[in-house]
Amino acid sequence: MNAFNVSEHMQALGLQAKTAAFLMARADAASKNTALKALARRLREAGPVLSVANQKDLERATAAGLSAPMVDRLKLTPKVIETVAQGCEQLAGMADVIGEIIGMKQQPSGIRVGQMRVPIGVFGMIYESRPNVTIEAASLAIKSGNAAILRGGSEAIESNKALALLVSEALAEPGLPVEAVQLVQTTDREAVGRLIAMPEFVDVIIPRGGKGLIERISRDAKVPVIKHLDGNCHVYVDDSAEFDMALRIVDNAKTQKYSPCNAAEGLLVSAAVADDFLPEIAAIFAAKGVEMRCDPAAAAILRADGALDPKAKVVDAVESDWSEEYLAAVISIKVVAGVDEAIAHINRYSSHHTDAIVTRDHVHAQRFLREVDSASVMVNASTRFADGFEFGLGAEIGISTDKFHARGPVGIEGLTSLKYVVLGQGEVRS
Amino acid sequence: MNAFNVSEHMQALGLQAKTAAFLMARADAASKNTALKALARRLREAGPVLSVANQKDLERATAAGLSAPMVDRLKLTPKVIETVAQGCEQLAGMADVIGEIIGMKQQPSGIRVGQMRVPIGVFGMIYESRPNVTIEAASLAIKSGNAAILRGGSEAIESNKALALLVSEALAEPGLPVEAVQLVQTTDREAVGRLIAMPEFVDVIIPRGGKGLIERISRDAKVPVIKHLDGNCHVYVDDSAEFDMALRIVDNAKTQKYSPCNAAEGLLVSAAVADDFLPEIAAIFAAKGVEMRCDPAAAAILRADGALDPKAKVVDAVESDWSEEYLAAVISIKVVAGVDEAIAHINRYSSHHTDAIVTRDHVHAQRFLREVDSASVMVNASTRFADGFEFGLGAEIGISTDKFHARGPVGIEGLTSLKYVVLGQGEVRS
Repeated sequence: MNAFNVSEHMQALGLQAKTAAFLMARADAASKNTALKALARRLREAGPVLSVANQKDLERATAAGLSAPMVDRLKLTPKVIETVAQGCEQLAGMADVIGEIIGMKQQPSGIRVGQMRVPIGVFGMIYESRPNVTIEAASLAIKSGNAAILRGGSEAIESNKALALLVSEALAEPGLPVEAVQLVQTTDREAVGRLIAMPEFVDVIIPRGGKGLIERISRDAKVPVIKHLDGNCHVYVDDSAEFDMALRIVDNAKTQKYSPCNAAEGLLVSAAVADDFLPEIAAIFAAKGVEMRCDPAAAAILRADGALDPKAKVVDAVESDWSEEYLAAVISIKVVAGVDEAIAHINRYSSHHTDAIVTRDHVHAQRFLREVDSASVMVNASTRFADGFEFGLGAEIGISTDKFHARGPVGIEGLTSLKYVVLGQGEVRS
Repeated sequence: MNAFNVSEHMQALGLQAKTAAFLMARADAASKNTALKALARRLREAGPVLSVANQKDLERATAAGLSAPMVDRLKLTPKVIETVAQGCEQLAGMADVIGEIIGMKQQPSGIRVGQMRVPIGVFGMIYESRPNVTIEAASLAIKSGNAAILRGGSEAIESNKALALLVSEALAEPGLPVEAVQLVQTTDREAVGRLIAMPEFVDVIIPRGGKGLIERISRDAKVPVIKHLDGNCHVYVDDSAEFDMALRIVDNAKTQKYSPCNAAEGLLVSAAVADDFLPEIAAIFAAKGVEMRCDPAAAAILRADGALDPKAKVVDAVESDWSEEYLAAVISIKVVAGVDEAIAHINRYSSHHTDAIVTRDHVHAQRFLREVDSASVMVNASTRFADGFEFGLGAEIGISTDKFHARGPVGIEGLTSLKYVVLGQGEVRS
């Protein structure tokens, strides 16, 4: 290996990104959409090339003994490629929000004041395994008029390089700067340390990966981080919940998929309906093999004679269960006195990601929406809906569990800022 | 002095603030407005008490040899008190934005998704000298439904303690938690270090003060900081500018007051009009004793025979002049080829605070608004308007020169976040 200097490489990427960001900020909507459509076309045409690059990653991963699910995530199948290509086309079809001016109002002095939506500038994206994230991040950067520096996982480096080349070609078609989207060309870990500590070039960092990675980046970053930690989501079944709806929602929130961050990890049931509701939902969980970690009240109901199939997994919950993100066929269950205790429990133990109430009571619904301090709060809907696409954002760069800047699913608007625009006719301050 | 433990004191303030924040978030508009009006009333009634406390600070400041302007800033005059009392009443009269739901739209799945404006939680405010900031911060905390921990300057501690007592009494009147606004009771500097490093209790830090203080806080804070560094603001006089308007705006932007961050520090003039415009504005500056730091082209024009009063201060600019925030009767002047060079110069040297163009050219105006990367961009208006009150925000907790979260003057909305609200009728994810 030749004497590759990571620090110099990152410095160069930063400077180029900053320059490209100014050009992207003034790019017109047509050019950005042309690049997105070109990227979709090139992705579909490049199947064989991508396959060769991807094969190298897969062979290295298998040789290194990566688990089957990990290897699976690495795969650039025709289906994965078609999905990201369609994503690019969808973005191209969306209205451009850059330059939009909101809230323009005349002030007593005569000046008119509003806010214009503009790109943030340069974002750094740090992610693992799945190479399709390279295209998702690139296409969002193009549409939002930002520049991006992408640092993918070392296990996907060949696939990511092949994809990044397609992005460069697509940017060049309408004459946009190819440095608007750059892939870090080294798998050296020092590159991450540099990327998160260049406030002169990078405006925000978006990490996607395990909690350890995200905590480390948040701790060491010298720029803001849009981060997503745990997804310890709850469904609260209120006194007045319709049972059919509550069963459907709790079942979907827990079992439709176990691994997503918006899957429910905790079930709270109002004492008024626990005797009737718990055996019904427990029967569904038992049939699907979901382990139930119960507080004493819930356990007593489920262990009562005849309440449940003997093979149902009813376990006594311990304190740590209320905070845990299982991402598995496990759910914590607690009987609460009512909506007050439900809100208090959620605000104490939830990860402030997504929490839902099932109720017919308007006052309880309003209180839950207002008082639960989470990024997404829901009435009579499954927590699984907490997603940029389901929320109508068109795309998602990540989900934020912070309150600052962007909260919840982050789409194009989360990659923008609002600057004040003042239109005068010669007014001066007196 | 007894064994006062700063760390324990800050920990206690943090815990109490967090608890109070939950209660403030659910407080109704009427209670918050009652507290604000009570605060206004108590401020007016407390004149003699405040005067005694303020006198102690003033005597200590004089004894310590503080400069006359510094002592002036400390003064709680009847006029200062009346101004902050009126500010509280204005806030009480404003609509409550907490709980507002925006952008509610139905998605293909059937769920309706919008965003609800909610308080950030707890903000920490670090400021110097002027004790009226205590009331400004307290009243904004109350209106926005946040809790605040206030750390004022040690030189104003007696005044701040007296003011904070009034705030507690005002909060208690409608039954709001008195811990919603707490003043740090020690002048120990360790308290600042603790305040900015309690992410478990404090959601955001707002520093107001010298650049050194703000840089130190930004570097060491473990939570987001809404910060305002330099105000190196520009006025660009375009080819098509109306001279009367341009003279009025440049004069106002530079000389109406020298110390504010939104005063102009740089004048750019299009080469097409420089020969005619520069002598006229220079005559105004000469009459007011404003020193002009000129690039060679501007200097040549102003030094031409008969162009200017011989007592005008025309000085050759050096590179550092383009970046400097003088906050004094000094302005840098540069002749540029046109709007392109003006935008490039501003994006390179400006502090991204506030920049204005004077023009009749629609295309130039639009390009300036879109391409100048500053928190406030203006057409045909004085930079001095960059202010929360002038922008119609009703109040201002500070001005942000960052792009993240809040940019430009920060009012109540900057102290809030948007959480997603989902209203369903039993929808589940398929």
